[in-house]
Amino acid sequence: MKNISILGSTGSIGTQTLEIVRENKDKIKVHALSGNSNINLLERQINEFEPAICAVMNKENAEKLKSRISGKTKVVCGMDGLVQSVCANGVDIAVTAISGMIGLKPTIEAIRCGKDIALANKETLVAGGEMVMSLARKHNVNIMPVDSEHSAIFQSLMGNEVNKIKKILLTASGGPFRGKTLKELETVSLADTLNHPNWSMGKKITVDSATLMNKGLEAIEAKWLFDLTPEQIEVVVHPQSIIHSAVEYDDHSVIAQMGNPDMKIPIQLALFYPYRLKNNLKSLDLFEIGKLTFEKPDMNTFKCLKLAFEAMKIGKSMPIVLNKANELAVEMLIRKEIKFLDIQNMVEDIMLRHTPVEAASFDEILEIAKWTAANIKKPN
Amino acid sequence: MKNISILGSTGSIGTQTLEIVRENKDKIKVHALSGNSNINLLERQINEFEPAICAVMNKENAEKLKSRISGKTKVVCGMDGLVQSVCANGVDIAVTAISGMIGLKPTIEAIRCGKDIALANKETLVAGGEMVMSLARKHNVNIMPVDSEHSAIFQSLMGNEVNKIKKILLTASGGPFRGKTLKELETVSLADTLNHPNWSMGKKITVDSATLMNKGLEAIEAKWLFDLTPEQIEVVVHPQSIIHSAVEYDDHSVIAQMGNPDMKIPIQLALFYPYRLKNNLKSLDLFEIGKLTFEKPDMNTFKCLKLAFEAMKIGKSMPIVLNKANELAVEMLIRKEIKFLDIQNMVEDIMLRHTPVEAASFDEILEIAKWTAANIKKPN
Repeated sequence: MKNISILGSTGSIGTQTLEIVRENKDKIKVHALSGNSNINLLERQINEFEPAICAVMNKENAEKLKSRISGKTKVVCGMDGLVQSVCANGVDIAVTAISGMIGLKPTIEAIRCGKDIALANKETLVAGGEMVMSLARKHNVNIMPVDSEHSAIFQSLMGNEVNKIKKILLTASGGPFRGKTLKELETVSLADTLNHPNWSMGKKITVDSATLMNKGLEAIEAKWLFDLTPEQIEVVVHPQSIIHSAVEYDDHSVIAQMGNPDMKIPIQLALFYPYRLKNNLKSLDLFEIGKLTFEKPDMNTFKCLKLAFEAMKIGKSMPIVLNKANELAVEMLIRKEIKFLDIQNMVEDIMLRHTPVEAASFDEILEIAKWTAANIKKPN
Repeated sequence: MKNISILGSTGSIGTQTLEIVRENKDKIKVHALSGNSNINLLERQINEFEPAICAVMNKENAEKLKSRISGKTKVVCGMDGLVQSVCANGVDIAVTAISGMIGLKPTIEAIRCGKDIALANKETLVAGGEMVMSLARKHNVNIMPVDSEHSAIFQSLMGNEVNKIKKILLTASGGPFRGKTLKELETVSLADTLNHPNWSMGKKITVDSATLMNKGLEAIEAKWLFDLTPEQIEVVVHPQSIIHSAVEYDDHSVIAQMGNPDMKIPIQLALFYPYRLKNNLKSLDLFEIGKLTFEKPDMNTFKCLKLAFEAMKIGKSMPIVLNKANELAVEMLIRKEIKFLDIQNMVEDIMLRHTPVEAASFDEILEIAKWTAANIKKPN
C-alpha cells in the first residue's frame, strides 16, 4: 500500500490522481490533500478519501473548510500547512500538482524529508533545477515525471540505463495557433487562446501551450531531469499529440512513447513505477488516426520557445526570470489586461534587462522572482 | 571480447554483421564463417577476418575454397561442417543469417551447445518455434532477434520485464504492390516484385515482402519470441518503415522503436545487448520525413498474410507447410515458372490438403517439409 500526499488536489492533475486512487484502492491511499480556493471540492474529496491531513493555502478558506467537515481529517493552512501535508510521517510519495512558484517550497521540503516526488509542478525544475536535483541525489529521492512529455522520455529510457542519450525529441502539439503569422497573432482572442486542440488542462498551461512557452519550460525541465545539454533537446511539432516524446540513442535507434492523449498513463506510472496498471483507457488506434505529422517549430513567431532555450543556455537566474515574467504576463492575459503577443514581448524585454546571477538557494530564487515582479513592464 | 560464428556470412545480414565487426575490432572477433556458393566472397572474408573455421555447404565448393586459401582457417563442409562452425569451442554467439530450412539444424545444435543466438533465420521459429524455444529455456540460451521488426519489439520491451503485453503492433511497409487489386496483381512482373521501396535485401525475402508472407512469417516468429497469442499481434501497414514495430502495454501506453531503415541497429544490439554501440548511421530526421502513415493490411488481396495467421492459429505442422510451400513457390517465381498470385494460391491449396499433426522434433519437421515438397501443385 502506497500513501500519497497531493499538493493541489483540486486541479486537473490532482483530480486525475484521485481518479486513479479511486480505481486502485487496494494499492494506494491518500494521506494528505491540499488546495487553495475550491473548498467545495476539497470538502467532497475529504469525505470520499478521508485523508489524515488537508492543507489549505488561504487561512480564511481553511477555517471555512474546518467548520464544514467532521471526521478526523486535520485541516492546516498556509505554506507551513502545505509543507506539513507533504512531509507527514506515512507519506511515501508527494504528488506536486500545484501550479506556480508556490509549489517550489513544499517540493523542496518533501525532498528533504526523503519523500519520492511525482512531479507535476513546472517551477520546481525551471526555477530550482540545480538545487532540487542535487537535493534529490543527496536524499536518495526519486523524481518521477508526471508531465506527459517527460513521462514519455522516462518510459523511452526504461531498460537503457547503460546507454547514452544522443538527443531527445520533445514533441509539441503546436497549440491552437500553429501555422499563424505574427500579424495574425496580433488579434487572437483569449477564448481562442484557451481552446487547445488536444488536451484539456488548466488556464495557465493552456495559454503556455498557445505561446509554446510550455514547451520551452518543458525543455528546461528535461535538461534537469535527464541531465541534458540544450543541444540535446529538439522540439518537434507533432499536431496529433500521439507520440508524446522520444529518445535517440548513440546507435541512432529512437525509442518513442505513444498513446491517446491522457494524463492517466503518466500519473499511474509515476505512482507505481516500474509497474504499469490496467486502466479504462482506449487502445491507440493508428488506423483511425491514419497519419502522424512533424514540423519544425516556428521560433521566430512563437518567440517564447526561443527565449526559453536562451534562458536555459544562459542559466543561473535567467530561467527564473523567464518563468516568473511569463507567469505574470499570462495572469494579465487571462485578466484581459494585455494581448497575446505581449506575453513574449514582456518576457523578452525583462530578460534583456536582467543580469544573470547565481540563484542556487530557495531564498535567492524568491529574490529573483520578486525582482521580476517589480521590474516587469506592461507594453505601452 | 565476443567471439561470433556467422551462418551465412556472404548474405545480406552476414555481410552487414561483418561490417559491424570491422568497426568494432576491439570488442568482437569472428571465430567462424560459412556460406555455400559465393566462395569468392568467402575467400576475401577469410583473408580479412582470419576465422578459425569456415564451413561451406557444398563439398566441391569447399574443396575449391580450400585450394585457394593459405593461413590457418580450417575449411569444413556439409551440414556437419555448418554445425561444427557454430558449436566450436570459443564461439559465444551464433549469428544465424542463413536463409531457408537449412538454417534450422545448425541453430538447434548451437542452442544445444549453449551458444547464444542472434537470430536472422526465419525458419528456426516458423517451423521449429515450440522445440527451439523450449530448448533455449533448457540450455539457458538467449535468442536475440536480428530482424528489424522483432528487434523493435525487443527494444520496446526493454525495462518492462514486470509488465504485460496487451498487443504488439507489427509494422509492414506493404511492399511494392501496396494498394494494388487482385486484378492488377495478375500481371505484375518479377522485376517489379523484386523492387522493394525501403529495404535492400535478398531475393527470397524481397518476394516475401511483396506478397506480405514476410509479415506473416514474422508474426509467427513474434508469437514464439514474445510468447503471444495470434490475437495479440496486429499488423500495421506503415509505408515509410520508420516505426519498426511497437508494443502496447496493459496501461495502453505504446512503446515504439523508430529509425531510418538499416539493419545495423538490430544486428549491433543482438551482438552487444544491453549496450548500444555508436555507429555511422544518420539521425532520424522527422522533419524531412514529414509524415508517418498507417493503414490496415488488405488480407483479401494479399492472402499470404491471412494464411500465415491461419497457420499460426491452427499450429502443429501447419506453419511448416505454409513456410515450405512458400519457399518452393518463391523459388519457382524467381525461376519465372509461375506468376505472382500463384504463390498465395499454391500455399492455400496445399494448406487445404494438409491435415495438421504434431511436429515437435527436427525429424518430424523435416518429414512435413518433405511431404510439402512432394505434394505442392503448380497451377494448371
